[in-house]
Amino acid sequence: MDQIQNKVKKLDEYQWPQGFFSDGIHAGLRDGLDLGWIYSETPAAAAGVYTTSQFQAAPTKLTKNTINLNHQLQAVVMNSVCANSCTGPQGEADALVMQQAVADKMTIDSNLVGVASTGVIGQYMPMGLITAGIKKLELGDSDKVAHAVMTTDSHAKTISVAADIDGETVIVSGFCKGSGMIHPNMATMLGFVTTDAKIASYELQALLSEHVNDTFNQITVDGDTSTNDMVTVMANGASGVDVAASDEFEAAFHQVLSYLAQEIAADGEGATKLVEANVKHAETKEDAQKIAKQIVGSNLVKSAIFGDDANWGRIMGAIGQTDAKLDVDHVSLWINGIQLVKDSISVNFDEAVVKETLASSKVVIDVDVNVGEASGQAWGCDLTYDYVKINASYRS
Amino acid sequence: MDQIQNKVKKLDEYQWPQGFFSDGIHAGLRDGLDLGWIYSETPAAAAGVYTTSQFQAAPTKLTKNTINLNHQLQAVVMNSVCANSCTGPQGEADALVMQQAVADKMTIDSNLVGVASTGVIGQYMPMGLITAGIKKLELGDSDKVAHAVMTTDSHAKTISVAADIDGETVIVSGFCKGSGMIHPNMATMLGFVTTDAKIASYELQALLSEHVNDTFNQITVDGDTSTNDMVTVMANGASGVDVAASDEFEAAFHQVLSYLAQEIAADGEGATKLVEANVKHAETKEDAQKIAKQIVGSNLVKSAIFGDDANWGRIMGAIGQTDAKLDVDHVSLWINGIQLVKDSISVNFDEAVVKETLASSKVVIDVDVNVGEASGQAWGCDLTYDYVKINASYRS
Repeated sequence: MDQIQNKVKKLDEYQWPQGFFSDGIHAGLRDGLDLGWIYSETPAAAAGVYTTSQFQAAPTKLTKNTINLNHQLQAVVMNSVCANSCTGPQGEADALVMQQAVADKMTIDSNLVGVASTGVIGQYMPMGLITAGIKKLELGDSDKVAHAVMTTDSHAKTISVAADIDGETVIVSGFCKGSGMIHPNMATMLGFVTTDAKIASYELQALLSEHVNDTFNQITVDGDTSTNDMVTVMANGASGVDVAASDEFEAAFHQVLSYLAQEIAADGEGATKLVEANVKHAETKEDAQKIAKQIVGSNLVKSAIFGDDANWGRIMGAIGQTDAKLDVDHVSLWINGIQLVKDSISVNFDEAVVKETLASSKVVIDVDVNVGEASGQAWGCDLTYDYVKINASYRS
Repeated sequence: MDQIQNKVKKLDEYQWPQGFFSDGIHAGLRDGLDLGWIYSETPAAAAGVYTTSQFQAAPTKLTKNTINLNHQLQAVVMNSVCANSCTGPQGEADALVMQQAVADKMTIDSNLVGVASTGVIGQYMPMGLITAGIKKLELGDSDKVAHAVMTTDSHAKTISVAADIDGETVIVSGFCKGSGMIHPNMATMLGFVTTDAKIASYELQALLSEHVNDTFNQITVDGDTSTNDMVTVMANGASGVDVAASDEFEAAFHQVLSYLAQEIAADGEGATKLVEANVKHAETKEDAQKIAKQIVGSNLVKSAIFGDDANWGRIMGAIGQTDAKLDVDHVSLWINGIQLVKDSISVNFDEAVVKETLASSKVVIDVDVNVGEASGQAWGCDLTYDYVKINASYRS
């Protein structure tokens, strides 16, 4: 494992993998960047995971159908401000027009174009601005596209990782947006991963589906699942490096997903802290993940962490609320390495020391449920006045 | 139905049913009332529902075991400030001492005494104060006991209903406490119902289990289930009126539970509004209730309602997040009677009018999912700055 990690390095700056271009522009939907795209010089193997909401947004549905058709994408066009969700037949027509506009611009098949939208649910797309904007998109190499899809995000979330595979380099890059309505189930918000690795689309899909379960699906900001959640991966093979069954590629891919997922949790609406829950000695991985997610999802735990309050009873409350198997009389609990609970009751800990560590920007909660060998993690954030402020006036 | 309702009347003031006494005193756990009891002149048929948390508090477990033993109670002693939860063997011993102290005081069997505690999890009971306090409890007729169990509640929650059964009167009275950590599953927080009706304990348990599902189990404040949730009913038969299979009694009983449950939701920590969701034309009652509870439980919906924002997309988001059967293209939605959504897309509504109605102290959301004949309801509250404030500093 250490040997693999030595061959996988996070780059200091965001970098597009070979053969990928992008742009982000101001199309007039708001002040600032609001429309962007990713473009690959050749069709790329593609995979995606999508929201499980029963009201899947028109662009999400279209991209899913498009990827399922031939498992390839050459471009993805995306916008913020308007989610094009709960917009009926008009919304579906609008998403198709966006797809066709990119295909016409580049003279490629429309079945190679994905569409992603994020913003307010239930409003129609300003199609005049959108189609005019698509005409202006260029083949650049900036990270402006990551800014164009931001909504209440406080900063763009990007990462590039280089993997050394038998002496050759493959780049895996990803960016995402997401700050509120974050409680993914199968996928989350918008995430876009690109790589110049050479890999079959079915293998790419299998990797994505596997690793999304430990990363994007294990974060929560507010327990609300979006209608537009989607993560796509495009692999165009431009590096010439075949990564089939490469541990180094899998490690790089996992690092990108894990980093982006934690970035979303840490930048949750109004959040001041990233909260990580690690559960060990559970009976199954599913149990461990369920407990971890319940802890980071509890409004009471989140409020206590905002207030630097070592109110561990609320963490026990969250653990007990799940149906995961527990040794109820022998649960242990630590906050940032300080043990608060042993055998399900309080140990003698120094309140002042715990209060001080709770003031850090990252709070790690470790839990031992004492029934097996499985572990699981989840990430969330604190619940603050600013979360309420942001969401009491989102549309105005 | 109307004929039954004419025979069931809410009284203007709280009134103990015949043969019941109570008291609430300051035992020194905090400023104000903090210890209380209910006492029946004869053993009463008893029923209870209890939290499904895996960490069931010591008093909750003891009361459950006590009721299960002989389905009778003559007294329930209760305190606020300390929940006696996650307190291990010491906590179980303390609950037993409380039970025995009441039994000794009244010279009754300890198996006729229930114990209920609420407050901070993980702290030991101040038993010196508790046992000294129990000695001071008197056989009064005030509602002080409802004040003694309040924690972050803004007011005592009490109701008395009189049912006319074949010309004779039966009283059903109830009180409860609860404001945060409210997301009952099987039961909720502390609720105490008393009646002078004559009814078999198995019938009382059946009625409680049935009606708790439509009332206490359909409220949520923050999605967090407590370790101490419990509702008990005591029927001492002092009226001499046999209410077996009485529709009037069932209506009165339901009214008491429904009123108390809504009182908890309306008085949710920091809340300024009661939110009611009514779902109709669902395939099953379970589906309708699931959708209704998802709506009132959504942090995003709750924040929007706090901000008087008619952001119906978030309500659709909550509906879509469930696995309940929907006609996804033909969902309709109303807020306080004003239609916002038809066929799952926006209708032309007046934003200003909806904003004005959202400023009311009660917001009713009606949803039609167009797949069947079943209905369901749930109650919650808005999410406010004060919720965060209260819970960032609960222990200090």
